Amino acid sequence: MAGLLEKINSPEDLRLLSVEELGELAEEMREFITHSVSQTGGHLASNLGVVELCIAMHYVFDFKTDRLLWDVGHQCYAHKILTGRKEMFAKLRQRDGLSGFPDPEESEYDLFRVGHAGTSIATAIGMALGAQHNQTDEKVVALVGDASIVNGPSFEGLNNLGLIQRQMLIILNDNSMAIDVTQGSIAKFLSKIRLSHTYEDLRRTTNNILEHLPLIGKRMEDALKNFKKTLRMAISPSRLFESLNIPYFGPVDGHDIGSLIDLFKAISELDRPALLHVYTKKGKGFTPANENPRKYHSTGPFDINGDAGGSSKTSRKYTEAFGDALVEFAEKDDRIVAITAAMPDGTGLGKFRDKFGERYYDVGIAESVAVDIAAGLAKQGLKPVVCIYSTFLQRSFDQIFQEVSLQGLGVIFCIDRCGLVGNDGPTHHGMMDIGFLRMMPNLVLVSPADETEVKAALAFALDSGKSVAIRYPKDTVPDDTYDLEACKKPFEMGKSVTVRQNNGDIIIVAFGSILVQAIKAADILAAQGIDVGVINARFAKPIDENLIPLLNEQKTIITIEDHGLSCGFGSALLELAADKALQSSGSGVKNPGKIITLGGPDEYVEVQTRSLQCDQIGIGADGIVETVKKLLSDN
Amino acid sequence: MAGLLEKINSPEDLRLLSVEELGELAEEMREFITHSVSQTGGHLASNLGVVELCIAMHYVFDFKTDRLLWDVGHQCYAHKILTGRKEMFAKLRQRDGLSGFPDPEESEYDLFRVGHAGTSIATAIGMALGAQHNQTDEKVVALVGDASIVNGPSFEGLNNLGLIQRQMLIILNDNSMAIDVTQGSIAKFLSKIRLSHTYEDLRRTTNNILEHLPLIGKRMEDALKNFKKTLRMAISPSRLFESLNIPYFGPVDGHDIGSLIDLFKAISELDRPALLHVYTKKGKGFTPANENPRKYHSTGPFDINGDAGGSSKTSRKYTEAFGDALVEFAEKDDRIVAITAAMPDGTGLGKFRDKFGERYYDVGIAESVAVDIAAGLAKQGLKPVVCIYSTFLQRSFDQIFQEVSLQGLGVIFCIDRCGLVGNDGPTHHGMMDIGFLRMMPNLVLVSPADETEVKAALAFALDSGKSVAIRYPKDTVPDDTYDLEACKKPFEMGKSVTVRQNNGDIIIVAFGSILVQAIKAADILAAQGIDVGVINARFAKPIDENLIPLLNEQKTIITIEDHGLSCGFGSALLELAADKALQSSGSGVKNPGKIITLGGPDEYVEVQTRSLQCDQIGIGADGIVETVKKLLSDN
Repeated sequence: MAGLLEKINSPEDLRLLSVEELGELAEEMREFITHSVSQTGGHLASNLGVVELCIAMHYVFDFKTDRLLWDVGHQCYAHKILTGRKEMFAKLRQRDGLSGFPDPEESEYDLFRVGHAGTSIATAIGMALGAQHNQTDEKVVALVGDASIVNGPSFEGLNNLGLIQRQMLIILNDNSMAIDVTQGSIAKFLSKIRLSHTYEDLRRTTNNILEHLPLIGKRMEDALKNFKKTLRMAISPSRLFESLNIPYFGPVDGHDIGSLIDLFKAISELDRPALLHVYTKKGKGFTPANENPRKYHSTGPFDINGDAGGSSKTSRKYTEAFGDALVEFAEKDDRIVAITAAMPDGTGLGKFRDKFGERYYDVGIAESVAVDIAAGLAKQGLKPVVCIYSTFLQRSFDQIFQEVSLQGLGVIFCIDRCGLVGNDGPTHHGMMDIGFLRMMPNLVLVSPADETEVKAALAFALDSGKSVAIRYPKDTVPDDTYDLEACKKPFEMGKSVTVRQNNGDIIIVAFGSILVQAIKAADILAAQGIDVGVINARFAKPIDENLIPLLNEQKTIITIEDHGLSCGFGSALLELAADKALQSSGSGVKNPGKIITLGGPDEYVEVQTRSLQCDQIGIGADGIVETVKKLLSDN
Repeated sequence: MAGLLEKINSPEDLRLLSVEELGELAEEMREFITHSVSQTGGHLASNLGVVELCIAMHYVFDFKTDRLLWDVGHQCYAHKILTGRKEMFAKLRQRDGLSGFPDPEESEYDLFRVGHAGTSIATAIGMALGAQHNQTDEKVVALVGDASIVNGPSFEGLNNLGLIQRQMLIILNDNSMAIDVTQGSIAKFLSKIRLSHTYEDLRRTTNNILEHLPLIGKRMEDALKNFKKTLRMAISPSRLFESLNIPYFGPVDGHDIGSLIDLFKAISELDRPALLHVYTKKGKGFTPANENPRKYHSTGPFDINGDAGGSSKTSRKYTEAFGDALVEFAEKDDRIVAITAAMPDGTGLGKFRDKFGERYYDVGIAESVAVDIAAGLAKQGLKPVVCIYSTFLQRSFDQIFQEVSLQGLGVIFCIDRCGLVGNDGPTHHGMMDIGFLRMMPNLVLVSPADETEVKAALAFALDSGKSVAIRYPKDTVPDDTYDLEACKKPFEMGKSVTVRQNNGDIIIVAFGSILVQAIKAADILAAQGIDVGVINARFAKPIDENLIPLLNEQKTIITIEDHGLSCGFGSALLELAADKALQSSGSGVKNPGKIITLGGPDEYVEVQTRSLQCDQIGIGADGIVETVKKLLSDN
């Protein structure tokens, strides 16, 4: 670790440096982040972009008492370095290591554990209102990116900023880039502004702000007016915020630490909310990331000379399996259109976008309307395929209910990142989608167990005319060593397939990709002379009614799912059994077998590899074996 | 029914009338709506406001092929009258009658069955994209109110309007009033505009638009520029939409049918999306509603001379019980703050607002940020109470997950309109909240069974330091004829209370207000010599573990809930039983009793009174009795 950075273990240390030294420190921190992420993997480009911002914020504010709210939060590395966590970067995003997102359990400098977009403005409003109520004078700062500020909740927050009668600073970190290129009119508007002026304009604007602000005090309106008059720009970005009655300052250079420090000092004196528009460069200082910020948004370990690690290429992912299948079907059926919310690559839509640009829609970070737009497309006779991660699809719960389920429309949901996601941790797990989707009438919920089934499930969905949700994990598909003959059968509504015939009393019923673990378990048990059956459920809704007779044969069913136990697949089977017990209670058996459910606990599963997370909650092969043996030992 | 209206059975008939006659027709329709709603109850003020708008829309567009998207949709009465449904108004919002919202099953003129805000722009974008894809030339029109356009999804839609390369008209129906007064900066901005000009300005603007538009064709930019130049207004509302690059026209008079017709014709010629800003008067034509639109937003039957029906006053509601309890606690604890999303009266916050104005926040129709703001307030040591209907809280699912549950903060959710809601029907039922809330770690979910318990549950929540959700229905609290001694005990975490000791083999476990039906059922059965126990569950999460031993005594438990069976309270008990079966499988009983679950089906329950809806799904007293007898007959 180079000279200056070595001495920085807290924001206090930072304030001992001169502005010139802060510049050097920024360079050292960039090197540190690049080197560190090249070893561990992580979010790179966005973190390189906000180094000066973080330094200036911590130089001016004391976030032990002042409040810093992150949006999305994956750009918090510099902040973590400055708040005494640099040693932990060797274990970034690893078990018992450093979270890739803000985490209050890690540091008093982190307030909210976040990972979703559009939350910082509203939570900041809440904290500012709280300070108003408590009559305390801590400063409140929300840092939000240009990709997050177009998110619905961000706008709802901006629209309610009038609730605040005190200081609150919103820093708009404008790097003109979400995970993918930012979508929508606001993005176009901001980039038009970007092009409409030079670096010199930024300096002039900065001086202009610093010149006027100190005089403002209470007579802000006039001062703001003068300030605006003296702005010389083709298009005034303030227009966007004026109608929301938000005092706007900028744009300014987000890499000029000295000016940022002066600006923060001046603006934080205001007795009302204000927005500072800051330009930063995603990937700044590391050429490969600078040239290809999308590739280096979130990366595995990589060669520092520019090859963004192989890990994402080594083995075939469900994501790729889906992406290729969709392209194949889309070639034959031009009613197929695809919609995503700023995650084309993560959901495997890259090929589709390149091949069928006119049938591809990216609405930016706006999951809610992605679903509504799909509903409209379905109403017009098209076959919309909505591609959103499970955790972000939670933003569309109400739209899936009203605009899709209630209308009985045929919208297809291809849900990536279902279940445990590994290193991103709790903010990104998809442990609730089975529950919130299976509550909705008219919806079908399936999960493929291998690549063949990914394609079969999609074929089934496209032909069904119904709304079908297909869930799969951030994981690789099983390799050919698995004999999954049963999985080659086409999908039939509400029908499971038997992978291993059972002669014993225990049957494992797995939902989705976790089937592989059930098969491994069955193999281990078979080697020990214990015979268990294995069924691939395929459907969580409608769930296969033919599973019930097995209970009447007094067999024990063990359900396995990569989802929370509450409201999950096992729960669906329990409900079905209870229902049958009522219907057939006359004729029904008096002494049915039992249902044992394995899945996620009622707590958040911490950061580590996905496979370790699966072991931890007992849905790995060993956990299944253990459960089976426990059951046998009891009989 | 008066002269002109009698002859109008379809939009075709409408087009036979002269513009003068259309004016008369509007008056007749207002009388018709006022008279009809005075008999049946329903939404009045908003419907009186859009009569001319609806007439003009149906006069210009042919919504058999053209597409009309409603936002919220409770203002669709005039539209229903004009599309051949006027005779059905006698059964408005009644069983087998006319829905109070758009309904495709009622008419080809209704596209989406809606009731939630902020959906029309995005669904319209979807339909316009579909038309683009299908290369058809139907016109697409979205009608959105000033209260809905500030909703996050509306904004996400506006931000994605650039996807549309063809005609699409957004009509902004500005009556400066949501259910309650519209909140937020946009609302302030719009009302400032409203005050900044006269009726004459509106006329000039109209002529100005009509003068410039026909010439536009493809060279729209310039024309729009000229058009804007000639606008003479203190504040230009266009500023709000310019930055979103949305061609804006208006404001114009929403009651001038002739002009509206000309404007629709002219603007619908545009080859791109445009927004027309229209002023209407909520409650126009019926003085009482005009003077008190809030009171007449949604009303029971009323005296046409101005007394807005007693139905809402006859008997004590859960809503009032909660509102009074909150005020009582707030007097003793000034850390209690309340937040709602444009439903202060519906959620019983009226008294709190009047008494503790500075601790009361209404964020407008923005459920998502209501929860995030609450999270920020909790982080500052306050006790935020979020008051949102169950169906609208679905908009906050992701915020409750990330900003509340994941942080382990203490936010209290007082959820009104849970379960079946009666005449509002499927868009407004709250049949999913138990499911989506109990999936979340760190959350507690309770439901009170009477007024005493409403207060006890709130006391428990305020003292718990945890996030507690309290659910109750749109219904009256049980009267004093019920001896609910057990319900007078304070709430203890995860503990149910026994209302009727059981000596028989069947125990009814009820969650929440439906307990009354369980007691009625027990009385009926007792009168027939059948002894059943009754337990008031109180908690769905954590659910009372002491219910399990009952099963080991081979008793049969019947769960009753005003919620869908999937993921509901019964499902939670089934999960607990399955979990215990695994844990105790050695020692555990081999032949446990069974759990029978009663609740909502996997389909939408149609419009009728709440009590009939409860009977329909078998959770009314008679249904419970029937189930008990069926079970007994089987043994």
